[in-house]
Amino acid sequence: MTADAARFLADLHELRRIGAFKTGVHRPTYSPQDMESREWLMRKMAEVGLEPEMDGVGNVIGRHKGPGPHLLAGSHIESQNEAGWLDGALGVMGALALARAGLPVDVIAFADEEGHFDAGFLGSRSAIGDISEEEIADARNRTDGTPLPEALKAAGLAGRPRMLLDPARYKGYFEMHIEQGTTLESAGERVGVVTGIVAIWQFRLVFEGRQDHAGGTTMAERRDAGLSAVRLLAEIDREFPRVCGPRSVWTTGRITLDPGAPSIIPGRAEVLFQFRDVSVEVLERMEACLRRLAQESDRREKCPVRVEAISKAVPALCDPTMMDALSAAAEAKAPGQWRRMPSGAGHDAQVVAQIMPAAMLFTPSIGGISHHWAEDTKEEDLALGIEVLADGAARYLAVG
Amino acid sequence: MTADAARFLADLHELRRIGAFKTGVHRPTYSPQDMESREWLMRKMAEVGLEPEMDGVGNVIGRHKGPGPHLLAGSHIESQNEAGWLDGALGVMGALALARAGLPVDVIAFADEEGHFDAGFLGSRSAIGDISEEEIADARNRTDGTPLPEALKAAGLAGRPRMLLDPARYKGYFEMHIEQGTTLESAGERVGVVTGIVAIWQFRLVFEGRQDHAGGTTMAERRDAGLSAVRLLAEIDREFPRVCGPRSVWTTGRITLDPGAPSIIPGRAEVLFQFRDVSVEVLERMEACLRRLAQESDRREKCPVRVEAISKAVPALCDPTMMDALSAAAEAKAPGQWRRMPSGAGHDAQVVAQIMPAAMLFTPSIGGISHHWAEDTKEEDLALGIEVLADGAARYLAVG
Repeated sequence: MTADAARFLADLHELRRIGAFKTGVHRPTYSPQDMESREWLMRKMAEVGLEPEMDGVGNVIGRHKGPGPHLLAGSHIESQNEAGWLDGALGVMGALALARAGLPVDVIAFADEEGHFDAGFLGSRSAIGDISEEEIADARNRTDGTPLPEALKAAGLAGRPRMLLDPARYKGYFEMHIEQGTTLESAGERVGVVTGIVAIWQFRLVFEGRQDHAGGTTMAERRDAGLSAVRLLAEIDREFPRVCGPRSVWTTGRITLDPGAPSIIPGRAEVLFQFRDVSVEVLERMEACLRRLAQESDRREKCPVRVEAISKAVPALCDPTMMDALSAAAEAKAPGQWRRMPSGAGHDAQVVAQIMPAAMLFTPSIGGISHHWAEDTKEEDLALGIEVLADGAARYLAVG
Repeated sequence: MTADAARFLADLHELRRIGAFKTGVHRPTYSPQDMESREWLMRKMAEVGLEPEMDGVGNVIGRHKGPGPHLLAGSHIESQNEAGWLDGALGVMGALALARAGLPVDVIAFADEEGHFDAGFLGSRSAIGDISEEEIADARNRTDGTPLPEALKAAGLAGRPRMLLDPARYKGYFEMHIEQGTTLESAGERVGVVTGIVAIWQFRLVFEGRQDHAGGTTMAERRDAGLSAVRLLAEIDREFPRVCGPRSVWTTGRITLDPGAPSIIPGRAEVLFQFRDVSVEVLERMEACLRRLAQESDRREKCPVRVEAISKAVPALCDPTMMDALSAAAEAKAPGQWRRMPSGAGHDAQVVAQIMPAAMLFTPSIGGISHHWAEDTKEEDLALGIEVLADGAARYLAVG
């Protein structure tokens, strides 16, 4: 099985013109640029013989007209603000290349994988039946607060039905994506066969102290919520390496001291903290460590801390047979220049994996730049990627 | 010498009605409420026989018409937003009570001691000749960015001359103020004779890292500016007690991680850090410690830190003869229920002290609440305060 790499690259470059920003793109979900790219995609699908359809949240699917067994392949087509040209677009154009090559593939572009709206994985969750009308009614744009129903109406999607994927139709789901890290690049490798997608466990740590004048309050009298937060974060930094897995990561993305003035002792501190791993056991160990450190903090500090779980996703393991097919293809096309590796970022594949076998392929990321207009992959690596994906998909269809 | 404590309390309660907010007041500098209180003050000054005048930055002075030697007494009349009824108002009404009692006192209300505009101590610095027209032209409101010249124009002050205090006219400056801490309350004491006003040294600590995706970047690859900031702040917390003085304080008022999103490793962190002491030697030791810890941080961390001094004020020591006069008055009126203590907060007295002897008297603060509408002092302590102030001022006039 071979894919037409030149056409695949030409498609990517054509799509990159819609919402172009410097060398990247700006296509936030349901923006005019995003809707233009969805319409463009439907025309492309029709060109390669698929039956295109857009649903009530903007999911675009192009259905293969022939008999099964079918594969589902794709990703998402909207971008983060002023972000890279590949990201989700790569997986959708890759899926289109599979269909063009004659494989029995339904091509899908899930809406809002990037989470411009706070529902999270809106399109893929809707497509597997994992989101309610209430949740859609309550969701808002994270940047400007626009209610999701209003945005859907403005995009002309109000009243359309939402599609439901039928697991019986598919043998599995393939998603190609840029790595969003430097593991492949650092090792001089060109293809990553993804073993699983890490789960993100997000927490809000809230410290309650007492707001006081920074001049009139002695160190002994203070209940400085910011200082308690700093001490706990320093403890986490020391203790997490003892409990984490080899690829675990943890991140403090925001620290808010209230009121945030130079001469006022913070009466409240709020920390956004998250960790990621592909193993539930490791995630549970990290949470237990976090809660133990919070307890120790409460014994030591004058400002109690509340640990609030915001979200605890389930890690998704990739299907072993699909991984084997991709590995065999990678070894055939790029011997010794590929590896198996987890995905540190979230992807629609983790949602789809809840209803069918799923697997992912990574292309290297130049300098690991992600969610920024400078994001890029060498064209020869993109071309190799589509060859491995097509060969892997054909191998998988051939087994069992 | 006795002051009319009942009239003094009645004045305070009358003033509290202007801009009343819950049990406190809201009189930001040059707001209609603030300007109303300045006009009210000028009428009060005339009532007690002073010659009132308002200058080009809103300083209000009521000059004693008789012969010297004169004292200057006062504080400020604007408030922090939604703040307490005493704060600066106490010192101005206290000064008015001295004039009413017949002492040769000029009463002054300096404008914007609270620093609504970023010039800092605008009124008192202007009155000692320590602020240029350029600085006034460049100053802005910290909350809404309004240029100071625009605010002065709106308040009807444009074009008025700015007053200059003549040190030759005064034997010294007295300022009464609420403690803004719990030292007196905790000890069951009722009067504080201030020994000096601590200086605030303010710094901005800027950490430069690399913004990356929190999923795709391993812990080893990261250059997390927020984590470097947390580690340095934890070090400061451990090391400062070794170099500080008995009443030193240090405060982190704000931590800003950039971009501040849950799934993005902060590429930049900015910390507002300050410390205060009454001794330059201690302040210099603390700064040396901060810079040593920053150097160690640079050796240890992947994110370099820049230590930027925002402001380094000079501590003001109170005049020993004035302190002795206040101490004798305190011992006479409240034997064993007073102490000498530094002021942790900044006051106009530290500016005035640059051109004449200055001293301050503290009343206890209930619960140490400051810059909040709940700020309060027991009425019996307010009454005692004005008696000690009047007696102390008379004793000081009698010496030398």
